[in-house]
Amino acid sequence: MATGVWLVGARGSVAATSIVGAAAIRAGLAEPTGCVTELPQLQGASLPPLGELVFGGHDVADTPLAKKADALAAAGVVPARLVAAVAEELAAADAEIRPAPAVATQREAAALVAGDIAAFRDRHRLERVVVVNVASTEPLVQPHPAHDDLDDLEQALGGTTPVLPPSSLYAYAAFTAGCSHVDFTPSTGARLPALAQMATLHGLPYAGHDGKTGETLVKSVLAPMFAMRNLRVRTWSGTNLLGGGDGANLADPGPNAAKASSKQRVLAETLGYEPQGHTRIEYVDDIGDFKTAWDLVTFTGFLGTSMRMEFSWHGCDSALAAPLVLDLARLTAGAHRAGRSGALTEVAFFFKDPLGTVSHGLAEQWAALAAFVRGLGDA
Amino acid sequence: MATGVWLVGARGSVAATSIVGAAAIRAGLAEPTGCVTELPQLQGASLPPLGELVFGGHDVADTPLAKKADALAAAGVVPARLVAAVAEELAAADAEIRPAPAVATQREAAALVAGDIAAFRDRHRLERVVVVNVASTEPLVQPHPAHDDLDDLEQALGGTTPVLPPSSLYAYAAFTAGCSHVDFTPSTGARLPALAQMATLHGLPYAGHDGKTGETLVKSVLAPMFAMRNLRVRTWSGTNLLGGGDGANLADPGPNAAKASSKQRVLAETLGYEPQGHTRIEYVDDIGDFKTAWDLVTFTGFLGTSMRMEFSWHGCDSALAAPLVLDLARLTAGAHRAGRSGALTEVAFFFKDPLGTVSHGLAEQWAALAAFVRGLGDA
Amino acid sequence: MATGVWLVGARGSVAATSIVGAAAIRAGLAEPTGCVTELPQLQGASLPPLGELVFGGHDVADTPLAKKADALAAAGVVPARLVAAVAEELAAADAEIRPAPAVATQREAAALVAGDIAAFRDRHRLERVVVVNVASTEPLVQPHPAHDDLDDLEQALGGTTPVLPPSSLYAYAAFTAGCSHVDFTPSTGARLPALAQMATLHGLPYAGHDGKTGETLVKSVLAPMFAMRNLRVRTWSGTNLLGGGDGANLADPGPNAAKASSKQRVLAETLGYEPQGHTRIEYVDDIGDFKTAWDLVTFTGFLGTSMRMEFSWHGCDSALAAPLVLDLARLTAGAHRAGRSGALTEVAFFFKDPLGTVSHGLAEQWAALAAFVRGLGDA
Amino acid sequence: MATGVWLVGARGSVAATSIVGAAAIRAGLAEPTGCVTELPQLQGASLPPLGELVFGGHDVADTPLAKKADALAAAGVVPARLVAAVAEELAAADAEIRPAPAVATQREAAALVAGDIAAFRDRHRLERVVVVNVASTEPLVQPHPAHDDLDDLEQALGGTTPVLPPSSLYAYAAFTAGCSHVDFTPSTGARLPALAQMATLHGLPYAGHDGKTGETLVKSVLAPMFAMRNLRVRTWSGTNLLGGGDGANLADPGPNAAKASSKQRVLAETLGYEPQGHTRIEYVDDIGDFKTAWDLVTFTGFLGTSMRMEFSWHGCDSALAAPLVLDLARLTAGAHRAGRSGALTEVAFFFKDPLGTVSHGLAEQWAALAAFVRGLGDA
Repeated sequence: MATGVWLVGARGSVAATSIVGAAAIRAGLAEPTGCVTELPQLQGASLPPLGELVFGGHDVADTPLAKKADALAAAGVVPARLVAAVAEELAAADAEIRPAPAVATQREAAALVAGDIAAFRDRHRLERVVVVNVASTEPLVQPHPAHDDLDDLEQALGGTTPVLPPSSLYAYAAFTAGCSHVDFTPSTGARLPALAQMATLHGLPYAGHDGKTGETLVKSVLAPMFAMRNLRVRTWSGTNLLGGGDGANLADPGPNAAKASSKQRVLAETLGYEPQGHTRIEYVDDIGDFKTAWDLVTFTGFLGTSMRMEFSWHGCDSALAAPLVLDLARLTAGAHRAGRSGALTEVAFFFKDPLGTVSHGLAEQWAALAAFVRGLGDA
Repeated sequence: MATGVWLVGARGSVAATSIVGAAAIRAGLAEPTGCVTELPQLQGASLPPLGELVFGGHDVADTPLAKKADALAAAGVVPARLVAAVAEELAAADAEIRPAPAVATQREAAALVAGDIAAFRDRHRLERVVVVNVASTEPLVQPHPAHDDLDDLEQALGGTTPVLPPSSLYAYAAFTAGCSHVDFTPSTGARLPALAQMATLHGLPYAGHDGKTGETLVKSVLAPMFAMRNLRVRTWSGTNLLGGGDGANLADPGPNAAKASSKQRVLAETLGYEPQGHTRIEYVDDIGDFKTAWDLVTFTGFLGTSMRMEFSWHGCDSALAAPLVLDLARLTAGAHRAGRSGALTEVAFFFKDPLGTVSHGLAEQWAALAAFVRGLGDA
Repeated sequence: MATGVWLVGARGSVAATSIVGAAAIRAGLAEPTGCVTELPQLQGASLPPLGELVFGGHDVADTPLAKKADALAAAGVVPARLVAAVAEELAAADAEIRPAPAVATQREAAALVAGDIAAFRDRHRLERVVVVNVASTEPLVQPHPAHDDLDDLEQALGGTTPVLPPSSLYAYAAFTAGCSHVDFTPSTGARLPALAQMATLHGLPYAGHDGKTGETLVKSVLAPMFAMRNLRVRTWSGTNLLGGGDGANLADPGPNAAKASSKQRVLAETLGYEPQGHTRIEYVDDIGDFKTAWDLVTFTGFLGTSMRMEFSWHGCDSALAAPLVLDLARLTAGAHRAGRSGALTEVAFFFKDPLGTVSHGLAEQWAALAAFVRGLGDA
Repeated sequence: MATGVWLVGARGSVAATSIVGAAAIRAGLAEPTGCVTELPQLQGASLPPLGELVFGGHDVADTPLAKKADALAAAGVVPARLVAAVAEELAAADAEIRPAPAVATQREAAALVAGDIAAFRDRHRLERVVVVNVASTEPLVQPHPAHDDLDDLEQALGGTTPVLPPSSLYAYAAFTAGCSHVDFTPSTGARLPALAQMATLHGLPYAGHDGKTGETLVKSVLAPMFAMRNLRVRTWSGTNLLGGGDGANLADPGPNAAKASSKQRVLAETLGYEPQGHTRIEYVDDIGDFKTAWDLVTFTGFLGTSMRMEFSWHGCDSALAAPLVLDLARLTAGAHRAGRSGALTEVAFFFKDPLGTVSHGLAEQWAALAAFVRGLGDA
């Protein structure tokens, strides 16, 4: 039996790249480069095969996936020949995309979303479905008393004033439909006490937050390097220039604050202190999907000697994110199958702002991930 | 009882910085920044305290240590106030530096060197002495049949034709004197079958090769990052600009080849394949002790998308090396005390070109090092 | 007869570096590196000699110049041996620094300042005095009707509500005292119609704005390069990290906006269109006087091919500014002596935001400067 | 009447990009971005219109131009849609490409080449033809006595031992056919006394050497910046990583030396002294046509303060070169029409290693170029 991947933001760049890629790899037209779960150290019968994933989702946009994929090909994110070769699969996934529901209460909206997901599962006789949030980043959410308790939340959802941000409403709907959940964005998603209760109650696992694709990935190996060498980092200042839809959204002060805060967490937690400097995100339309990040690190060595390091990262965010979305869908489905519920802290490897109290060093996260996959057995 | 550190190249930049630093830290005038063995995770009673190291050594130069330290202060490598504050300790170490012996056969030279070391040990009633090579890099050595067997070597040393490169002759002398040995350079040192036999025979540990201070340190965390993310590195090309005595020496084709080969090893062994590109070393007198390295990495991600990363590293080699020299002296003395003999493969963390078949990823090397220190116990 | 240089902000980093440098060069202890007016192409009898400048000024701070110079030496901006060698000259200049006047109306304040300057001129029997603003950058000024007409301004200055920003009040005082004026900062200074009238009326020249020391200097040669090659710049995004007093001030939103706007002007005026991207200024205390700027330029070439350039600039702002302050004092005094009055548009070479409608390309500015110096004759 | 452009190396990347681009611009499918002679300041009736150039040439390769253009499109150098749109023009140019002659003496070879060119001119009733060398770089040439005198050369060409390098033989053939000549490579071309005599004798102009497309272009604006600011450049060290056919060729020690020497000339001649450091060229197949250059510049400012600048240039060499080839063909044809003969020193703007004793600063070169175009009149 196949596994479903229900993408919130299913017509965005990351979703489209994931769907094109999964189809191209299944057809033998591309290597699974960038897919961590295809590395020998992580392979095992416990994860649903990459070739057996079925895609659907929600999106407010109605541009067809095929058109989105053409735009990605024009921008150099995916090869045009692959887009052409998987046209049929794109059309099939597109037919499984539903609009965001427009109803009076969030309770009704959640019920409709959960219904869409359940119908998708039934229609394709899927063993299970993983809901993955790849929608635009939300502003930092306002706290609300009903966020802390599931009973209060259930009640509040019946009112006409929205109580949950969209990302959390989708997580609520996923749990209602008996599905696990992955948040690939810095949005709130399942990160509320009431939703944690719900996941445990329903025996469902969830993972997050904020896919670690570029600058923060590099930070998560460089910061431990300085720490292991007992060198004192004084300044760590970063500039991120990015275009595309994600860039335009992150240039808004709200989402920008959410993202920048997520990006600096690795430093304080790895080094044990917070160096000077900030991370800045600037939207530059012309840069498109290829983000450029520049970081300056100044540090002190033996007897106080000042030294410095700079790096530039020029990466395609969608191409870096898409294989990780496939990885996380497989890992979360595998965890669900193995009976795991609650926060999957062992997949911190994939996230800028991981759940739980975990190491931010990439190597320790890798070791935790490998142990996790082994622990899922060969069920 | 104190521990001796016998530096081959005792009047060079790295040696002088190490001696100034050890004295300054002992006097409470400087923090042990850059000293790995001072990190909480590695502390333990099994290592000789940093404050109980006594320094001596050999050098062909006769510029006094105090003068060398003044030059380092002028170049910004060490603070002038620290050099002034430890003048007495510098004079004491300087009084323990012996010239390279000038005699007819290498056997006689080794005996004289061993005698110098033993006299140093007796004079200071040292528990033991670690011999550390911080001299200039030698050209790649010509193979010689006597390198493969200790008996053959003993015999060949009696001839008037030199059979060992200087770095190996010092290792031979160290073992003769019952001392452990560290090679902080890419030179041959103890890395010959005959010398390995000798170390085992005498129950002596040795460590090496080529201190990992800058560009290669960064490589040893970035290369595993690409590997863990299943990204395909296509090109890794590096340029090293360095001045000072080490730079002038490395600009010679012989030592340059030795160094550059040592620097690329981490890539092939971490990635499992060799990307395109080379590492170039250029001598630029004006740059002095502050080395600038620039690396370009191009890599392929999901569906073949091309991406790239660049980094610049601007570090002071002597300031990066000196604390590691102190670390290695302490670790090797601790291993000697605990009865370890032969190649210390567990200290690969410190080296570009480590002994044995070991991981080149910094995080795995760190784990091995921590386990090693724990294993030495609290004897 | 000597020429006076009256520095507004006389105890700041730029002022102190200028005074130390002028004294050191006069004493033959340093080369005039960085002094443009010492280049063969610009030398001539029309400018007062570097060695005959006499320094005084105003400052709200009361830290003695000698102490400021010691701090600059500790930070690596000036050599400690030079500071020690010119202690007498520093004390002499320090004795000529007056506090900012604290009185009821701006008219009274201007009269006191003008009196201080005139007394300085008389005391030293100076041929003339140039007033140079090297104080901290002000926020963008609020327009006021009295800014547009000298008569209105004269009247408004008598009220108790301040009508001029401090930088402009000093320019007013300079003109009152019969002195020429240079604004080395982005502040308003003499850049008001009423003050332009006043300069013309009194036959006084003035120059400005905002010394071009680092990133913008580079822009002023790279932007013409792209223009001359008919390459289309798409993005030009800059990040400036700086510490020191100037950095802390520029991190305030007000001065930051003034500075950033001044920095982008060169692009629009050289290219003929405004590329995407912004210039960001971040205060990082640890970086001190050595600023790091990073710029990314993306551009389109033949048939639409996308290309890119990045540069990092690591410069000491005070060391870059100080020789230009000396140059401008000499050039403005020379213009004054030659009977020039009003805006000196020919010294645009020195400024980010030059007066008048002038080329922003460095080479054209250089040609204009050379012609200007030749035009001053050998009087 | 139209003007012919005879490309030596007519099936290489630069030639193919030039031909595609000229056709696309003529058809109104692309802007003349990168074409300097299309800037308003340089336009005039004295140059043959871009749309009236007719292409032919010699090449040892027999891959059709259309196939080469497809490869360039796949590599991202030119848009595939443009290649498709100009298929007819590519085929027409391809039909005008002749193989290199294989005969016993260089005299015979030159006669055959000249015959090919003359036939091309007649067939298309061209007003005149410009021969442009865009072939691979040759090794530095061995001096030969016959290089110094035209009579000696004419005689030596009759022997069976080659006396001229291929680039010079083509220049000789061009002059024989009454055509002007441009050398876009660092090869010898017309740069021999005997050939200079020949050009003057026949009343023919020639231009060269080595198109200034990337790193050296940037040097030619940055080096004057340091000079104009009286800053002392200490080190200028460059690394060029390039792939493609040009890269493979330049990795050979011979051509590499020719190129690297051409690249450093700008520094010594602009600064008036030679800073430390070298330019290195490394061939990295994976990088393809997009070259990456990294330069480190260290410099000294006021009172000896050390500062630094780094830049990375990521440019497509063929896309940067092609519009300049079109520019040079137009300019040289215009000069020929206007009766100019001998070395065209006024087009130094385009070259790394320009003919004659000229400024290496880009702005002065630009001024010389603009004056040159104006001087050609509107004939």
